[in-house]
Amino acid sequence: MTFPVVGMVGGGQLARMTHEAGIPLGIKFKLLSDTPQDSAAQVVSDVVIGDHRDLDTLRAFARGCDVITFDHEHVPTEHLRALEADGIPVRPGPDALVHAQDKGVMRAKLTEIGAPCPRHRIVTDPADVTAFADEGDGYPVILKTVRGGYDGKGVWFVRSEADAHDPFRAGVPVLAEEKVDFVRELAANIVRSPHGQAVAYPVVESQQVDGVCDTVIAPAPGLAADLSGEAQQLAIRIAVELDVIGHLAVELFETRDGRILVNELAMRPHNSGHWTQDGAITSQFANHLRAVLDLPLGDPRPRSTWTVMCNVLGGDYPDMYKPYLHVMARDPQAGIHMYGKDVKPGRKVGHVNTYGDDLDEVLDRARHAAGYLRGTITE
Amino acid sequence: MTFPVVGMVGGGQLARMTHEAGIPLGIKFKLLSDTPQDSAAQVVSDVVIGDHRDLDTLRAFARGCDVITFDHEHVPTEHLRALEADGIPVRPGPDALVHAQDKGVMRAKLTEIGAPCPRHRIVTDPADVTAFADEGDGYPVILKTVRGGYDGKGVWFVRSEADAHDPFRAGVPVLAEEKVDFVRELAANIVRSPHGQAVAYPVVESQQVDGVCDTVIAPAPGLAADLSGEAQQLAIRIAVELDVIGHLAVELFETRDGRILVNELAMRPHNSGHWTQDGAITSQFANHLRAVLDLPLGDPRPRSTWTVMCNVLGGDYPDMYKPYLHVMARDPQAGIHMYGKDVKPGRKVGHVNTYGDDLDEVLDRARHAAGYLRGTITE
Repeated sequence: MTFPVVGMVGGGQLARMTHEAGIPLGIKFKLLSDTPQDSAAQVVSDVVIGDHRDLDTLRAFARGCDVITFDHEHVPTEHLRALEADGIPVRPGPDALVHAQDKGVMRAKLTEIGAPCPRHRIVTDPADVTAFADEGDGYPVILKTVRGGYDGKGVWFVRSEADAHDPFRAGVPVLAEEKVDFVRELAANIVRSPHGQAVAYPVVESQQVDGVCDTVIAPAPGLAADLSGEAQQLAIRIAVELDVIGHLAVELFETRDGRILVNELAMRPHNSGHWTQDGAITSQFANHLRAVLDLPLGDPRPRSTWTVMCNVLGGDYPDMYKPYLHVMARDPQAGIHMYGKDVKPGRKVGHVNTYGDDLDEVLDRARHAAGYLRGTITE
Repeated sequence: MTFPVVGMVGGGQLARMTHEAGIPLGIKFKLLSDTPQDSAAQVVSDVVIGDHRDLDTLRAFARGCDVITFDHEHVPTEHLRALEADGIPVRPGPDALVHAQDKGVMRAKLTEIGAPCPRHRIVTDPADVTAFADEGDGYPVILKTVRGGYDGKGVWFVRSEADAHDPFRAGVPVLAEEKVDFVRELAANIVRSPHGQAVAYPVVESQQVDGVCDTVIAPAPGLAADLSGEAQQLAIRIAVELDVIGHLAVELFETRDGRILVNELAMRPHNSGHWTQDGAITSQFANHLRAVLDLPLGDPRPRSTWTVMCNVLGGDYPDMYKPYLHVMARDPQAGIHMYGKDVKPGRKVGHVNTYGDDLDEVLDRARHAAGYLRGTITE
């Protein structure tokens, strides 16, 4: 066997950074992207421009690929099955990926395997939401469309039945979940290969602002060793039970009474793993590629005591080049990762990784760099 | 100013790894490559296929680039001057680069600025070589064609006048140098930007086999602090005097009597700096890009006590995928960097970086991985 071809569907920053990680691996990387301006399409040599929702496009793209993997969860499940029927390895496969595509399927499966979840059920209308609330401690309740949401989209924080109408307008099934009394959010990131090898990254703390990931601290400060081990084992068990291949991010709530509950699953490199580019021996992107190719996995251990990742969101100024210069001058150790995207307010356009022995200092540096790039800090 | 376009001339592995380093920087990378199969052309989106010796090709390529830089030293000096006359920043510029292109010019300039060199002069025929030998301690003498050599090519180890005929056959001027009594070879790698900032990487030990770099140890074990500082200062002084922009590798001899002498100069990312990809806070490739763009430079300090790089040369087996699998399984911490090149005996097709606190162990791991990939180790 010679060096294989990996086909990645989706031209976002995850594909961009996966290509970056694939260059030293010597593999051939092929991209299916919506437009030539997409983040990954700017940097990949072998790009097909096309619609990932069109089966003929997917089939033509998959020809000549040794394996297909994904930058996002938006390829229709039935198309993935068709590719598998054509004999193309799809990793993660449709039977796994459906759990990251459909929150209803995910909750049902996790409950079946005994993974700890918030109280939940599919609800049919606003009156049913009130019934769900009354089955527990009452309102507030979280409503989610089972498909199509990300970064806080497709999620509603509902305080009363009068608030509960919007989620039903799209005609997509709606999942109700209790509002968990959590102290913080964690993420357990693992990578699993077809031959059954799995590696677990340190469990991280993930801080959200307005439903969007803002800061990730690796490892999660002060996390009890038993809870950390429990989270890693839970993530590996989910990967095994759902037959996930590649990177799996299990987003978790740490509750006030010391338990962990599964919030979301993502079966691809994930924002909560970006710190691994500068902070771990092997990055999530390299290990995702190694996993989908069934190569032996790389060491997931951290290289520094603390690593912090802060997302760079678009601010009011469309040109980031001057603040980028400033950040480089101010912190020559910062790992700046830009996605080549046009700046729009609130859009993720990059991230900064910092690392070191003093958490406060490492946090300050990452936050300053990200804030300066966004334009919320000007000194 | 928005994010700029860097044009790199030459499609080898140095361009491949520079593109890799440019992805997180968010810059646009354009490549001029001889063929679409070249190492870098396989992974870069924006590739022009053409001959770097042709001025019209260079001019067309340079249009739309904010700066031009190089994977090799083979662009004719007069073409670089023409690009500069067109208003394209060329970094390093022709007046600097000529010292890496022409060993005669290099020796004359280094002597002028008082940089320590082996005894040397241009020789005209075999009898003149004997005259040069007699001016010192006699034969052996090193002969080099002033242009076109690399990796031991264009270099002759000459024991007598009868041996001294070959170098003159090409019709290129020939430089004679004394055979230096050295204990080892070192490299001082620095990066310098147009606004005058410079950073120095730790001085490394470079071990050659048959004239080709085999192993690099960072930092050079047991190197006296004053000699290390002298080497770094010498490299920076050369960069300033020759107005080098970007990465400068100064290959050095450490003599038995505790001096350093300049062997060669390279004005681009260099094999002796590959260890920085896994071993330094900022890699030579990222800093080369930052320098040619006049961005603030990144921190050059090491991240581990020891980092070792071993080149992977082609062996007798054309398919490296199976040994590559084995190496990944045996050493999950190894940083494997493949160039996407066809395997030919003796050809550089990749390198392996290892790091840690115990030099013997780090050396063993790198040597085993490289030897296994080549096929010289089979267990």
